Amino acid sequence: MSIITVERKVLEKNDQIAERNRRFFRDRGIFVLNLVSSPGAGKTSILERTFERMRDSCRMAVIEGDVQTDLDAQRVAEYQVPVVQIVTMGGCHLEAGLVADAMGKMDLDGTDLLFIENVGNLVCPSGYDLGEDLKVVVLSTTEGDDKPLKYPAMFRNASVLIINKTDLIPYVNCRLDVLRDNALKINPDLRIFEVSCQTGAGIDAWCEWLGGKGARGQ
Amino acid sequence: MSIITVERKVLEKNDQIAERNRRFFRDRGIFVLNLVSSPGAGKTSILERTFERMRDSCRMAVIEGDVQTDLDAQRVAEYQVPVVQIVTMGGCHLEAGLVADAMGKMDLDGTDLLFIENVGNLVCPSGYDLGEDLKVVVLSTTEGDDKPLKYPAMFRNASVLIINKTDLIPYVNCRLDVLRDNALKINPDLRIFEVSCQTGAGIDAWCEWLGGKGARGQ
Repeated sequence: MSIITVERKVLEKNDQIAERNRRFFRDRGIFVLNLVSSPGAGKTSILERTFERMRDSCRMAVIEGDVQTDLDAQRVAEYQVPVVQIVTMGGCHLEAGLVADAMGKMDLDGTDLLFIENVGNLVCPSGYDLGEDLKVVVLSTTEGDDKPLKYPAMFRNASVLIINKTDLIPYVNCRLDVLRDNALKINPDLRIFEVSCQTGAGIDAWCEWLGGKGARGQ
Repeated sequence: MSIITVERKVLEKNDQIAERNRRFFRDRGIFVLNLVSSPGAGKTSILERTFERMRDSCRMAVIEGDVQTDLDAQRVAEYQVPVVQIVTMGGCHLEAGLVADAMGKMDLDGTDLLFIENVGNLVCPSGYDLGEDLKVVVLSTTEGDDKPLKYPAMFRNASVLIINKTDLIPYVNCRLDVLRDNALKINPDLRIFEVSCQTGAGIDAWCEWLGGKGARGQ
């Protein structure tokens, strides 16, 4: 019995289900983003600001992943956005099979954008394809400018970096230029947005890209 | 082949090594703290403030755990505190065997306090005993007051909660009383310290407890 063999088999199985999810989404023209970050970096707040700006122009839905509680799903539901909660009961990341189960509980016909909010964890979710079009990593300025170097896999596997809580820059040890440089050292193709969910700064640029052709690589 | 069986065997093996580590520490009178938190909550900053106050009265050493880089070990070394870096190369938590390897590279004779700084991850390290006397979970006010409910295992398994970055309270959505209540709901025995590594507030109380009899339960 080998742990590495088990791990490889788990990942192979995950990737097969992820491909099935991806075909389902593509067949229906649903664009899917997998949001990953440390706990408390602001994934749910970014979704809330996004709903406010885009709910009239775009049909959105959310799959929420949490270790415990449905607090985030409750926040999403207040915006009348369809949401299904996955509680991992201690599990440190979402897997494609859990997402497939959640998809089975939603009516996704006519959905333009599906957000999958992963468990708050800057390590484990990086290796698990869920069938998304792209991974969006959210980093709060309060976490410090060294994080891309210390947790490189997440930044390597993401297509987009949202730097959140820019309003706190005057009060924390985070140099934005160093943070950007560190992120681009790990992944030169990262598209970077700088936002504050408190003041709303930068949210328009993110939503324009998301609603336009940018996100779809067109 | 069953994943659950492999996981149980991994944990059993870990616990055996952790017990060996614990006997080693107890035989030498070394008090050991396992520091856990999300990325960027301030574990290393708390160590820096602790070194400043306690290095004249107490012999300290550090085992640093990181996914990648030795940036934190470099910060510790500036305080002339002995430190060994473990790089997990993608691994999401420390295990007792990695700590035993690090112990083999240090001269711990005469050490009073050993800090093990775990990988920044509020989920996975909670299940792994390293042989420590107690776990200290660090939570930043910027992560929000709901985190004990959303990541309960870590708060259940810790003996101490340090709420860091209290200087940012005026700028973030974190109600200290709600955070404390949520933490005590999960674990009524948690000892809670509130600190700011920026202003130094609360650090004295933490160090007094750590250096005195409180930490040893006497």
